Amino acid sequence: MTVYEDALKLHEENRGKLAAASKVPLENARDLSLAYTPGVAQPCVEIHRDKENSYRYTSRWNTVAVVTDGTAVLGLGDIGPEAALPVMEGKALLMKKFGNLDAWPICLDTKDPDEIVSIVKALAPGFGAVNLEDISAPRCVTIERRLIEECGIPVFHDDQHGTAIVVTAALINCLRLIDKKPEDLKVVISGAGAAGSSIARMLYHYGFRRIYVFDSKGLVGRRTLKNPSPLKAELFEFTNPDDQAYANIAEALKGADVFIGVSAPNLLSEEMVASMSEKNIVFPMANPEPEISYDACKRAGAYIVGTGRSDYPNQVNNLLAFPGIFRGALDYKATRISENMKMAASKAIASLISEEELTPDHVIVSPFDERVVSAVAKAVGEMAVQEGFVRK
Amino acid sequence: MTVYEDALKLHEENRGKLAAASKVPLENARDLSLAYTPGVAQPCVEIHRDKENSYRYTSRWNTVAVVTDGTAVLGLGDIGPEAALPVMEGKALLMKKFGNLDAWPICLDTKDPDEIVSIVKALAPGFGAVNLEDISAPRCVTIERRLIEECGIPVFHDDQHGTAIVVTAALINCLRLIDKKPEDLKVVISGAGAAGSSIARMLYHYGFRRIYVFDSKGLVGRRTLKNPSPLKAELFEFTNPDDQAYANIAEALKGADVFIGVSAPNLLSEEMVASMSEKNIVFPMANPEPEISYDACKRAGAYIVGTGRSDYPNQVNNLLAFPGIFRGALDYKATRISENMKMAASKAIASLISEEELTPDHVIVSPFDERVVSAVAKAVGEMAVQEGFVRK
Repeated sequence: MTVYEDALKLHEENRGKLAAASKVPLENARDLSLAYTPGVAQPCVEIHRDKENSYRYTSRWNTVAVVTDGTAVLGLGDIGPEAALPVMEGKALLMKKFGNLDAWPICLDTKDPDEIVSIVKALAPGFGAVNLEDISAPRCVTIERRLIEECGIPVFHDDQHGTAIVVTAALINCLRLIDKKPEDLKVVISGAGAAGSSIARMLYHYGFRRIYVFDSKGLVGRRTLKNPSPLKAELFEFTNPDDQAYANIAEALKGADVFIGVSAPNLLSEEMVASMSEKNIVFPMANPEPEISYDACKRAGAYIVGTGRSDYPNQVNNLLAFPGIFRGALDYKATRISENMKMAASKAIASLISEEELTPDHVIVSPFDERVVSAVAKAVGEMAVQEGFVRK
Repeated sequence: MTVYEDALKLHEENRGKLAAASKVPLENARDLSLAYTPGVAQPCVEIHRDKENSYRYTSRWNTVAVVTDGTAVLGLGDIGPEAALPVMEGKALLMKKFGNLDAWPICLDTKDPDEIVSIVKALAPGFGAVNLEDISAPRCVTIERRLIEECGIPVFHDDQHGTAIVVTAALINCLRLIDKKPEDLKVVISGAGAAGSSIARMLYHYGFRRIYVFDSKGLVGRRTLKNPSPLKAELFEFTNPDDQAYANIAEALKGADVFIGVSAPNLLSEEMVASMSEKNIVFPMANPEPEISYDACKRAGAYIVGTGRSDYPNQVNNLLAFPGIFRGALDYKATRISENMKMAASKAIASLISEEELTPDHVIVSPFDERVVSAVAKAVGEMAVQEGFVRK
């Protein structure tokens, strides 16, 4: 049986993956009188007196709404909110397993960004935080930005920032390994969607200065991209600093130090990898089939290779980021998840590999490393406190 | 410590009552590849092919959204969505404990009925059914009616119908005990809100013909209530058939057979109870303080007394209804919860007391009676099938 057949069987036999559970006893009338009427009136009164008490007397302090409109599910595209539910249940389970978070799927039957924003804002009183998931670009960016400002609880779109945080962590360790500074390196990113844009932004934030981003139409830049969308135009500000007009990725990659792929399968050739600088870094992360296979990369002489796959070294897996980010945001009473908090997460993930452990085949820790969540949570939470993005 | 102090302690020590839980193993990379990527794509594809498969491969078949806007919480009134959360978590726990349902609170930060309707409709793809809770009247009635027609999954407002179903069940058994027909009895209802209106409607549906409803301003009727709201005007159709103009409840109760109170404490005197017919039935159910105490009722010679309290005989508790109703609706793939399905629930609850067991102090079973949920679920589900209110 393939993994797909096995997965279908698992989902059918268990009739889904997610359940609700009680944290308190419910065995007799006395138990009911405390968990429900009449006793339950008392925490209600205390919260009515001060909404902050909702984090004290309910599970809100630990809950995450996993919100989708089903428009960009895995590689399947716009398959609708019902069909997105298996992914959202899975995400909720990962939240529980890795972050000890109580998450619940919210699959919305609307694609209207204004409506999605107003619904999520309306849902906020019952949740501690919001994870946006599998919402298509560029809508996801505007939806997230509006919610961050308007929603009052932390909002994080994992598809944008999860991969960006882990790629940045891996690159921090690559810099340690090759003993270079971020401004020394030329970076080519394939993919200017939700993930690609966020990666470019984080790398710039970290200090990379020579970043070139390609979308399906070519290089993003003032000379090459006429009538850009507002989100593409933002990339002009911190990528393609010398206004290059590379005809294609092959041309841009000549002598480049870093390739990051969040685009499409089989887009890179061995020749292109071989044309890069010495000690080059290649992260082909298209899922499930990468831009170039790990083996082909190595044959072409790549120095450090990272993929999205668990069956090769250096798995760039957003599971390293989101459980700790939400854990930290909730534990430290964060009101938002800021750029600096994301960067703190990257640095915390990178720091888990010591100088002695650091090798080209080990620039990023395993998502099963038990230190990850607490390290990320602490870094994210302390940055929230430092920035003042916390509830009183 | 009082029940209120104990309840606050329970809520604080457990940091809320509700959690999410996994139904599948998540111990290693293989487990993750089935529950999440890449395997999860397969159930997504199957659901995209046919939305009905969302009931097969996800937990949707067993989930209930517990939706409130926090406008009518317990007896506390409009305390807001955050302060309603302890009640919604409690309700979700009762769903789990009694109906083995997976329910999650949805506390909405809006009081606009149109917005509530459109949000609940947007949430429907991720849930199997919707329980509306603690939404103020008359808004709750219009919201529920619109959702029943527009939402596509079963919607049930427990505050309206839960008590009505159980009161009807108790009255069915009272009729057995006193060997009368519903049309023989004169019924006076105190309270014309969500619960009172639904009780009047169900009793009429069962065959009661002489029903008189009082709200805080007096008797509901064409002569007595000028400029009625649309919902009050509906009561004209099946209550106060001889267009009485009783000045107050005391006048209406003279010679009446049944009193049902869903209104305010201490509204009934012993004299008023004594003025009723022989073998009278008195259900003072205002919570937590009834319209008249059980002891005073008995002193005044009431034949059958039922209250909302667990410390007296004949507890009219909506816990007898909603777990089985949702269990039946979901198990039998119901598309709505109809009037006949609610009536089937009442009859099923009543039938659990045999002729031998039936006494004035035992006209309704305990909510801890283990036969209740399956009996109600079966009756409700079979009626859904009979009426054709089921998914193909």
